[in-house]
Amino acid sequence: MSAPDSNLGEFDLIGRFFRRAAPLDAQQGVVLGIGDDAALLRLPEGSDLVAAVDTLVAGRHFPLITDAHSVGHRALAVNLSDMAAMGAMPAWATLALTMPSADASWLQRFSDGLLELAREHGVILVGGDTTRGPLTVSLQILGSVPRGAELRRSGAKAGDVLAVSGTLGDSGAGLEFATSRPRAVDRAAVDALIRRFDYPTPRVQLGLAARYVASAAMDISDGLAGDLPKLAAASGLHAHVQVERLPLSAAMRAAVSEAQAREWALAAGDDYELLLAAAPSMYPKLEAAARRLNLTLSIIGELSSGSGVSWSLHGAPYIPATSGYDHFSQASTQITV
Amino acid sequence: MSAPDSNLGEFDLIGRFFRRAAPLDAQQGVVLGIGDDAALLRLPEGSDLVAAVDTLVAGRHFPLITDAHSVGHRALAVNLSDMAAMGAMPAWATLALTMPSADASWLQRFSDGLLELAREHGVILVGGDTTRGPLTVSLQILGSVPRGAELRRSGAKAGDVLAVSGTLGDSGAGLEFATSRPRAVDRAAVDALIRRFDYPTPRVQLGLAARYVASAAMDISDGLAGDLPKLAAASGLHAHVQVERLPLSAAMRAAVSEAQAREWALAAGDDYELLLAAAPSMYPKLEAAARRLNLTLSIIGELSSGSGVSWSLHGAPYIPATSGYDHFSQASTQITV
Repeated sequence: MSAPDSNLGEFDLIGRFFRRAAPLDAQQGVVLGIGDDAALLRLPEGSDLVAAVDTLVAGRHFPLITDAHSVGHRALAVNLSDMAAMGAMPAWATLALTMPSADASWLQRFSDGLLELAREHGVILVGGDTTRGPLTVSLQILGSVPRGAELRRSGAKAGDVLAVSGTLGDSGAGLEFATSRPRAVDRAAVDALIRRFDYPTPRVQLGLAARYVASAAMDISDGLAGDLPKLAAASGLHAHVQVERLPLSAAMRAAVSEAQAREWALAAGDDYELLLAAAPSMYPKLEAAARRLNLTLSIIGELSSGSGVSWSLHGAPYIPATSGYDHFSQASTQITV
Repeated sequence: MSAPDSNLGEFDLIGRFFRRAAPLDAQQGVVLGIGDDAALLRLPEGSDLVAAVDTLVAGRHFPLITDAHSVGHRALAVNLSDMAAMGAMPAWATLALTMPSADASWLQRFSDGLLELAREHGVILVGGDTTRGPLTVSLQILGSVPRGAELRRSGAKAGDVLAVSGTLGDSGAGLEFATSRPRAVDRAAVDALIRRFDYPTPRVQLGLAARYVASAAMDISDGLAGDLPKLAAASGLHAHVQVERLPLSAAMRAAVSEAQAREWALAAGDDYELLLAAAPSMYPKLEAAARRLNLTLSIIGELSSGSGVSWSLHGAPYIPATSGYDHFSQASTQITV
């Protein structure tokens, strides 16, 4: 552990780096923000509170070499993605930051990354706790949704199509390349993929547009092969995916074989794209919304009565080589840099 | 790192140990609890949301030898204490748990400790995230308060009396004895003090009773000498404390000299008692409420116009030897077992 900067007390840390977004407070239902025992927040009338928490552990959820700016972005992005998956409007966040020492330059970069994304989404940081220990970033996001408008995992119906936003697997490929830096691969493609890992884009606007249109939603954080079974189980349905329809980015196609790209699209984590179910009659509305947002949306399969998940490739059964990220499973993909 | 139990996936961990409080959900405004991308929660009409987060790092906020049952209790208790300090009714919690491996017996004890206290206070665990890494427990508490009824640090007026609940310093003494285990000291007293460290009692009911009665409140988590200046500054007042009035427990008096007891009462952390300011005319109502709750309440000083904090002992100026717990200050009291 490096020597702490004794001029940076816990109270100062929070105040100095994280209070910068304060002027917007009044517009965001913040009755009382950072500085008391707790934050006091006012929800819009007729809405429910939506709450989620996600933790990033250094060396596990991001390589130790990752720029603090990216870590700050990611800590908020993964939580915004949960809001997107519920069709919720994000509003406030609290931050539990554990770090080995009070490193002012790291904190500056980290808070820049976090607050830039917060401003983009109108999110106010309303509280936090800084403690000393191994680098761990736990962020809780709070948002709202009009009562009854939320997107649940359990709402899908037999006959619904399954769709995903954006492209899959890029982030997993980016993580792999960030640590291995292969020489034989297209430089620009590798940089684009690494950037997708470093700066995931939560699909908040698409989630809002999917209210009353999609029947079910979740975000893909642990890989499609790990996450889709959860949506199928919650809805009490069988899900089938045509693997050849998984959307792959140009960078991914330039960097690796199609077979490798497919595996990453299926099983690599950290995509933070939305998985949506919708009645075929509603799908065009979803597609139009995505188009307005300049976002691709791809049908990848459908839901039917039954249970479990099946995969096919050009009509033949397909077995994914891995089954998605699970933090406590020995078989899981793990960051060990 | 010990070998993980590969049968315990992340999803199973949350489900198996933390879903036990589910039957109460419907009575607590939980529209949707653990198992989707986020929890969906309904606040009582006319109330504001109150949110706080606190993190416990193993070896820093509790000794590594601490029973997991106590760690679970403490993780919730320190957050309930923030609700108490706001006059808020706690309702829901989310848990971000980082641990080296999925140890089922540790998780059983930890979740028992957490859920027993949760049931006592009608708190429902509505979400969480389990990750692998050094043991870190970050809990976010969510509660509600009728609009305008909250207790702020900034509400005190010149002429208010300052009061504290319970006795001070016990927890700090308990921590000291838990690690040093002195032979010369009264055995029963030491056990009582260690128990106060292991099982802090959040003063939620007193906080609720103090609505519309106290003018300001905060909880004492970093020691009175560390926390009182924050209340004085927030209210724009000077605080004076008569150190001889600090409430000391019988166990503390049996265990150490009065001078040592005073220092712990002033500067040791983890008391989780309430510091309250009240107009002298309102104080009897506060005292009556404390009596109904079987809780002592002691006037320790008063607030006047000015700034800063002063201390006296039997009329003579008194300088505390230490100034409260600060996680990033080199001068702070730190757990280094």
